[in-house]
Amino acid sequence: MGSAVDLGNNNNMGEFKHLVIVKFKEDVVVDDILKGLENLVAEIDAVKSFEWGQDLESQELLRQGFTHVFLMTFDKKDDYAVFQSHPKHQEFSAIFSTVIEKLVLLDFPPTLVKTPPKAAPPEAPPEAPPA
Amino acid sequence: MGSAVDLGNNNNMGEFKHLVIVKFKEDVVVDDILKGLENLVAEIDAVKSFEWGQDLESQELLRQGFTHVFLMTFDKKDDYAVFQSHPKHQEFSAIFSTVIEKLVLLDFPPTLVKTPPKAAPPEAPPEAPPA
Repeated sequence: MGSAVDLGNNNNMGEFKHLVIVKFKEDVVVDDILKGLENLVAEIDAVKSFEWGQDLESQELLRQGFTHVFLMTFDKKDDYAVFQSHPKHQEFSAIFSTVIEKLVLLDFPPTLVKTPPKAAPPEAPPEAPPA
Repeated sequence: MGSAVDLGNNNNMGEFKHLVIVKFKEDVVVDDILKGLENLVAEIDAVKSFEWGQDLESQELLRQGFTHVFLMTFDKKDDYAVFQSHPKHQEFSAIFSTVIEKLVLLDFPPTLVKTPPKAAPPEAPPEAPPA
């Protein structure tokens, strides 16, 4: 095996991500599921951010029937564990499992290799002098 | 079908994402592929940001053999088109296709439902007075 390569090692200070890609069953009202997900992440503080998308672009051969991407970000792996065991998540998962035809789920600490220029932290403003 | 639900409609001002999940063939030196990807995104300005991760957590039943996630972000869909047709991308894709056992690819405009608190733009610092 090759030697380890330095890939920048920006592990986002311990961030953890939860990725789900799904194909919904026919006749499922996807908007209702999205609304449920929106409510879920709003109710669980451990979820730092949540974004989703629907593929309308790539070739069917490449997306293999999957249509939707759900990506949650947590400040740390422990927060993901909190989310996983949260009663509201478990309640939602029970519903979710009935509306999907197939899914793939990947949980991982992300490594940010190319940082968006806008993400550069601004210079810290000078501290206000003590009164 | 249900009526459309207002899901916040934060479409990130036209951002576009390119998600790839893969299972590599055995004996592939994944670090070499990662290094190649790092070089690729560094060389193509159209790629705004790039992050990747390796799933070491979820159940095999759920991840279905997939191990790696690659996620690129573009400022707009046109930038993704530039990336897709870039000679260096096409060159890399030819190599990439030889090292993967399977992949799923999804391209989508992301909708950010829950915004990380830190993402709020900082107050603009006061302009320095003219000299």
